[in-house]
Amino acid sequence: MNNALALAYAQRLIACESVTPATGAVFDALEDMLVPLGFTVERFISGEDDENPAHGAPVENLFAIRLATNGRHFAFAGHVDVVPPGNGWASDPFVPEIKGDLLHGRGAVDMKGSIAAFIAALHDIPKDAGTISLIITGDEEGPAIHGTRALITHMQKRGSIPDYCLVGEPTSVNRLGDMMKIGRRGSVNMWISVAGTQGHVAYPHLADNPIPRLITILAEIEAITLDDGTDWFQASNIEITDLNVGNKATNVIPAQAEARLSIRFNDLQTGDALVSRLRTLVERHGGSLTAMISGEAFLTPPGAFSGAISAAVEEVVGIAPEASTTGGTSDARFLTNICPVVEFGLCNATMHKLDEAVAIADLSALTEIYCRVALKMLAAEA
Amino acid sequence: MNNALALAYAQRLIACESVTPATGAVFDALEDMLVPLGFTVERFISGEDDENPAHGAPVENLFAIRLATNGRHFAFAGHVDVVPPGNGWASDPFVPEIKGDLLHGRGAVDMKGSIAAFIAALHDIPKDAGTISLIITGDEEGPAIHGTRALITHMQKRGSIPDYCLVGEPTSVNRLGDMMKIGRRGSVNMWISVAGTQGHVAYPHLADNPIPRLITILAEIEAITLDDGTDWFQASNIEITDLNVGNKATNVIPAQAEARLSIRFNDLQTGDALVSRLRTLVERHGGSLTAMISGEAFLTPPGAFSGAISAAVEEVVGIAPEASTTGGTSDARFLTNICPVVEFGLCNATMHKLDEAVAIADLSALTEIYCRVALKMLAAEA
Ligand SMILES: [Zn+2]
Ligand SMILES: [Zn+2]
Repeated sequence: MNNALALAYAQRLIACESVTPATGAVFDALEDMLVPLGFTVERFISGEDDENPAHGAPVENLFAIRLATNGRHFAFAGHVDVVPPGNGWASDPFVPEIKGDLLHGRGAVDMKGSIAAFIAALHDIPKDAGTISLIITGDEEGPAIHGTRALITHMQKRGSIPDYCLVGEPTSVNRLGDMMKIGRRGSVNMWISVAGTQGHVAYPHLADNPIPRLITILAEIEAITLDDGTDWFQASNIEITDLNVGNKATNVIPAQAEARLSIRFNDLQTGDALVSRLRTLVERHGGSLTAMISGEAFLTPPGAFSGAISAAVEEVVGIAPEASTTGGTSDARFLTNICPVVEFGLCNATMHKLDEAVAIADLSALTEIYCRVALKMLAAEA
Repeated sequence: MNNALALAYAQRLIACESVTPATGAVFDALEDMLVPLGFTVERFISGEDDENPAHGAPVENLFAIRLATNGRHFAFAGHVDVVPPGNGWASDPFVPEIKGDLLHGRGAVDMKGSIAAFIAALHDIPKDAGTISLIITGDEEGPAIHGTRALITHMQKRGSIPDYCLVGEPTSVNRLGDMMKIGRRGSVNMWISVAGTQGHVAYPHLADNPIPRLITILAEIEAITLDDGTDWFQASNIEITDLNVGNKATNVIPAQAEARLSIRFNDLQTGDALVSRLRTLVERHGGSLTAMISGEAFLTPPGAFSGAISAAVEEVVGIAPEASTTGGTSDARFLTNICPVVEFGLCNATMHKLDEAVAIADLSALTEIYCRVALKMLAAEA
């Protein structure tokens, strides 16, 4: 195994500035890496005819596949877009820089380093071991409307549905290998509005203050215990994230009161059922509720796939990863609809922060882990 | 009695543009009216050395007195400042205009018309009936820090404390004479703030959301019944007038949550006791509370003074006024500290509105009522 490959690939990808949504050069770099390895590379733009500004600019996506007649189909999913660097970096965020044991640059851990490690691993995976594909989007950090979802449609159209999909998000916490994600909670935001009748505080009988009704609604919501969690998930949780009346006049009873909720929920709940339950509660008090479901909860129950990752991690770095379902959402929420999906990648301590950096040794170790996982799953029983 | 006098005075006062704080010409006009009637007129500016911008610009005030050796001392209190006219008047708000039975202009009912009626009434009050004074401020509609309070200090210094004070605010509702005010509720605003620890909604255990504690506080406040009112006052009332978190990010647990209350209270409560009670409640849940007391409740219990007004109203317009304590605050809250005070004046339907107007017949009737009340109270037993 060539330990320098993952580092070289990571440097090249970081050097392609690709604040979300990513386009152009960073995909050219990927294509340059994959074609010599025998991959068919399919690039396409999605969302060009979408006029909703909330869905973001058109998105570039890349699907690469190397077909084999034997074995299973193993996929690696990831994104080449990065969050904006922000001000205050010690070095240029888009000029990869090695300082001691670390490689600095935006995307080092989230997740150009992980993509580099997987492509490096491909050098040690024989072509006849099985079918390999890469599902790479330029919009995971943005609206994610025209990214992985469009890639899945593309794969469905060409009949290339994988048997397993590894998502390379940075799941490790304190050291490489301490955590993988076998599921994610679902997420829904809700906006509550209660209308009343404006008036003067000296004449409350002529007005209808919406705030007491909003307080009653929110007190009832605060009293809800959605569930106690499961073997794999923590309890579903409701947070009230905003209150808004916007009444500057001390002697005026306002006409409108609003609140916003964010619910992270496990697989005992569904977004639709939560919206329906909360809407009923809110409407009972004369309020109204709108909602946006960002993703449903999903779980890939512990089994052969997570077992293979656990074994590979233990062989390479000597620890067994915790099988977690905590944290925010990722594109795994879409991929779970086509095959079992597990997320495993670099340490996330510096992701989305200033001076994002990856340990060079972690790039090598991750390459070795990815290689072992892919070989094991390509050889799995059908 | 000269029915044209009150109208002429009202026209002259309206023509002196005097958006709060009033200065100059409108006081010159008053002085021109009072000196020929034998009044000593004392004008002074208050608040010139006050650097707090919330207290407003320096305020012009006028105290006028006509001493008699007999009888009681009867005072009339009022303000010559007016609220801004706003856009959309049918005629110029500072050009008094008679249309049919009405005199239009800013201040027509609140309360230049009332001042005009009282000065007109003076023509029919013999000098030896008793001592008469006028307590006129240029800042009742504004902060009211350097207005009537400064006039009271001035009167205390010169030893001219009245036996009775009639405040000429527009207390009538549907027709002249249907309501007088024998008291006013007190008023206090409170600001509640609850601090927490900001965090990501996906990791609520690392954050401390202040909103649930604010909801608990507000639900407890909503459950409070301060009192059931008295023979003369409606029940004290708490209104939550604002909620503010200002958190734009749907995935962030905010660090701070705020609410504002407005309490109108009767003479069973005091501002200080309310602040103390609510502060204890708020602090029990880890919040903090600041307060501003605008005025304490006051009551001039029904007796000789309100009886004289009632009788005069009935004699002149044929109805008995309701003795009310409803509505907002007025400068009567200050005057009640020096003598019995009752408020009676024109119809308030158009006060503070576009096209403020007074019925010309009401100016004559009010002149007659004020004349009878003054004569009765000047002759009252000591
Ligand atoms: Zn990522
Ligand atoms: Zn007024």
